[in-house]
Amino acid sequence: MVALCLPSLHLFFYPSSSFRSSFYSPYKTPISLPKLCASLIAREEVPEAEEPPLPSSLRGVDRKPSSIPEGAVTPLSVDFNAWYLDVIAKAELADYGPVRGTMVIRPYGYAIWEAIQEYLNAKFKETGHSNMYFPQFIPYSFIEKEASHVEGFSPELAVVTIGGGKELEEKLVVRPTSETIVNHMFTQWIQSYRDLPIMINQWANVTRWEMRTKPFIRTLEFLWQEGHTAHATAEEAEKEALQMIDVYKKFAYEQAAIPVIAGRKSKAETFAGASCTYTIEAMMGDRKALQAGTSHNLGQNFSRAFETQVVIVPIWKKGNERIGVLSTAASVEQILKSAEIKVKIDNSEQRTPGWKFNFWEMKGVPVRIEIGPRDVANGSVVVSRRDVPGKLGKDLGISMEPSVLIAHVKSTLEDVQASLLRRATLFRDRNIVDVSSYEELKEAISQGKWARGPWSASLCHLDNPSDVEEQKVKEETGATIRCFPFDQPEGSKVCFMTGNPAEQVAIFARSY
Amino acid sequence: MVALCLPSLHLFFYPSSSFRSSFYSPYKTPISLPKLCASLIAREEVPEAEEPPLPSSLRGVDRKPSSIPEGAVTPLSVDFNAWYLDVIAKAELADYGPVRGTMVIRPYGYAIWEAIQEYLNAKFKETGHSNMYFPQFIPYSFIEKEASHVEGFSPELAVVTIGGGKELEEKLVVRPTSETIVNHMFTQWIQSYRDLPIMINQWANVTRWEMRTKPFIRTLEFLWQEGHTAHATAEEAEKEALQMIDVYKKFAYEQAAIPVIAGRKSKAETFAGASCTYTIEAMMGDRKALQAGTSHNLGQNFSRAFETQVVIVPIWKKGNERIGVLSTAASVEQILKSAEIKVKIDNSEQRTPGWKFNFWEMKGVPVRIEIGPRDVANGSVVVSRRDVPGKLGKDLGISMEPSVLIAHVKSTLEDVQASLLRRATLFRDRNIVDVSSYEELKEAISQGKWARGPWSASLCHLDNPSDVEEQKVKEETGATIRCFPFDQPEGSKVCFMTGNPAEQVAIFARSY
Repeated sequence: MVALCLPSLHLFFYPSSSFRSSFYSPYKTPISLPKLCASLIAREEVPEAEEPPLPSSLRGVDRKPSSIPEGAVTPLSVDFNAWYLDVIAKAELADYGPVRGTMVIRPYGYAIWEAIQEYLNAKFKETGHSNMYFPQFIPYSFIEKEASHVEGFSPELAVVTIGGGKELEEKLVVRPTSETIVNHMFTQWIQSYRDLPIMINQWANVTRWEMRTKPFIRTLEFLWQEGHTAHATAEEAEKEALQMIDVYKKFAYEQAAIPVIAGRKSKAETFAGASCTYTIEAMMGDRKALQAGTSHNLGQNFSRAFETQVVIVPIWKKGNERIGVLSTAASVEQILKSAEIKVKIDNSEQRTPGWKFNFWEMKGVPVRIEIGPRDVANGSVVVSRRDVPGKLGKDLGISMEPSVLIAHVKSTLEDVQASLLRRATLFRDRNIVDVSSYEELKEAISQGKWARGPWSASLCHLDNPSDVEEQKVKEETGATIRCFPFDQPEGSKVCFMTGNPAEQVAIFARSY
Repeated sequence: MVALCLPSLHLFFYPSSSFRSSFYSPYKTPISLPKLCASLIAREEVPEAEEPPLPSSLRGVDRKPSSIPEGAVTPLSVDFNAWYLDVIAKAELADYGPVRGTMVIRPYGYAIWEAIQEYLNAKFKETGHSNMYFPQFIPYSFIEKEASHVEGFSPELAVVTIGGGKELEEKLVVRPTSETIVNHMFTQWIQSYRDLPIMINQWANVTRWEMRTKPFIRTLEFLWQEGHTAHATAEEAEKEALQMIDVYKKFAYEQAAIPVIAGRKSKAETFAGASCTYTIEAMMGDRKALQAGTSHNLGQNFSRAFETQVVIVPIWKKGNERIGVLSTAASVEQILKSAEIKVKIDNSEQRTPGWKFNFWEMKGVPVRIEIGPRDVANGSVVVSRRDVPGKLGKDLGISMEPSVLIAHVKSTLEDVQASLLRRATLFRDRNIVDVSSYEELKEAISQGKWARGPWSASLCHLDNPSDVEEQKVKEETGATIRCFPFDQPEGSKVCFMTGNPAEQVAIFARSY
């Protein structure tokens, strides 16, 4: 069981050197393609009633073990990591780049990013943000200026030392994030409170020299967006930060069907240079699919954040059936397109229908329509939903009459979304254990679960007296504080570690 | 007079080492934000009947001359270059980045890029292309593999030598363009003709270590898109290349109102590593505006490729007029929005109406609506078009009745677009001189015009016997062959330089 930081939200305050009578706060709200895709790919998909087994230990193996034959998808029950990498390769989401730790995002993977961009861009603009673009080369001195920033990022920097064939006088950092350069520009643009607020966003590539990499989870270069704003008052900045968390959370629940937990980071896990970081944490779903042991039940489903909603597979045996089936499939395609449902016909003749079923299931298309000669004769189709395997997921004899077919497909798409979210929420909730002692925490973590319990951590902007205890938990269990959730139980609390009064519960888990 | 390469289109052929029985051709169709914006900003805007004067010599001055007071826009008649930089700063299109030669693209400038992306992305998808993303770090050995590529790009490379605090074993190039890495991946993805065609596109940042830089014209890092495709036959690749040129050309004419000339590059001007390059060339319009000498007639107009189409300026003097004027302005805004016209009210009370007129003219908003107390009383507004200065450009007493107002604004927007294109085409055509001798060419170039004449250049893929003469023209006049236009005059031709038979006319001009 691992916690995945889906979109992480950072808030931090710089006192402005040019504007001391008040203060402003650039904050940054990044969402990254890699981690979101990983979360979508590795979502759990299991019968709701079943209990999850103990998790496999997740080693950071970057390539498929040699024992699995080339070309086959490693069964999830054998090796979660290899299965994950195989799905990415087979569904053509991404490929390895020639430089260690880089990846090429292929059309199917990039389409997910485009859907995310389209949704979030509209929300960002609705909430008053403008897009901009900052240069990716940052003077090395900028990084050094921010002491805590340089400490956090120095080990991860890619540095340009040669430009135009000559050694540079000042080395340039390839942006790992844009705070320093954004702040540099903000101080030039902000002359008085009349220039506030500034609310901008950037879609960009960033670079971090990670040692252990895995496609979509951690790569040297990745795509993200980072929002930065400056406000006249702390209250306005806080309001903005909470508003943007809400945009992310809505996206996760309503578009990606990922039941994230929103909260505040502990000091130890706070973004380098920030005084406080907010986060939304998603739970990856590898455990249950391991027990199911069905190597073809691949467990990814991209739901709404996905290009293709419906695939039509025409089926015929005899040559004289071909034209009728294909023209009917084309009519069905038109009917669905007229209702703005995204649809694709797979009419290639080099593959069998069975091969196509597997292929599109692996690609994560939520709804499949099958059309054979009998369907043509009956004026009906078969509608299969991706999230319910076998006959249970098939609706036979759905009329081709446009209003009936459209209503059925739309309601099936809604059902798939709702069902995914319900299952993921169930999975999440039964894997979070409320603990009241360190022993209970250790037990929960050793079972691969998340542990939630009162923790005497400080609030934002204050020193954190429990840094030492937090470090001890990390060393002894491998778990870190993922967040102090915004949703807190009521009543007085006692820190399970120190016995001191605690203001909030924290969530501990192992993470990527 | 300078020629500006707006979108340049490159076609070149790699024989595939893994697929020798046929061949495929990655080609690249980049359009870059910087140059497009520069062309939009510096478009000409003069009375149609007037003749252009001799051009000023355009020195590569990167900052405003110190004789102009800080804060003022340098008159165009004094210094085209300083005027250009001032407009970019005052209209808040871009700002200088902290690293020499980089720029920050501000919301107003970035909105142009977003409009371009939105338009072209739809066209690319309609024509069967998918978006992807390739890593920006390229092993140095990839660049070295392509001998002609390395020759073309080596002087312009930014090189990463340190990663994660350590000296790298192999240096990494920050992509100046993506051919080498795209080709590397294509050879892995293409196993047989069944995998063809591959048609992909990438929106990305690229880096070139330019020594002389200017915002939007040449910067160390810039945003662009590059399309790459692989085909089974040369005919299919050629068809694709011509189709994509046409997409660009339509965009330039129909959206940006820039009358580009499409054609083929000479060998000397061909993209490094390519055997043939196509291009679309636009003429920058600084000459005429210099003669007009009106420092406030700033000459940029972003036409359709622009966020704001209409700005509403409410005007009142007495306090009791304020509410009526503002609520009427809000109604007019709603009426226009209901017709999907992009509109903004400037109701700030810190600025006078006159200041707002200037500001929005400088920003290039094509239509302004003025609403004063008398208009409120009459139920009418004043509609001013940006491209016709003074009273001639004002339509008084336009009814606020929605159907009348919408029709009037839409037809004014169409008129502005058509008028811009007509003027730019007139300007372009009267600055292209047909020459039949080298003397005539020298005379035309010395007047800052473009010269068009028969040139005994080879066709694509053959050696070019006139490289030496082309070099001579460049050294003696500063002009290069911008392209062999697709539109060619009929009849037999004699090379004006050598007296040999010529197949085509070429266009010569000085360029940025």
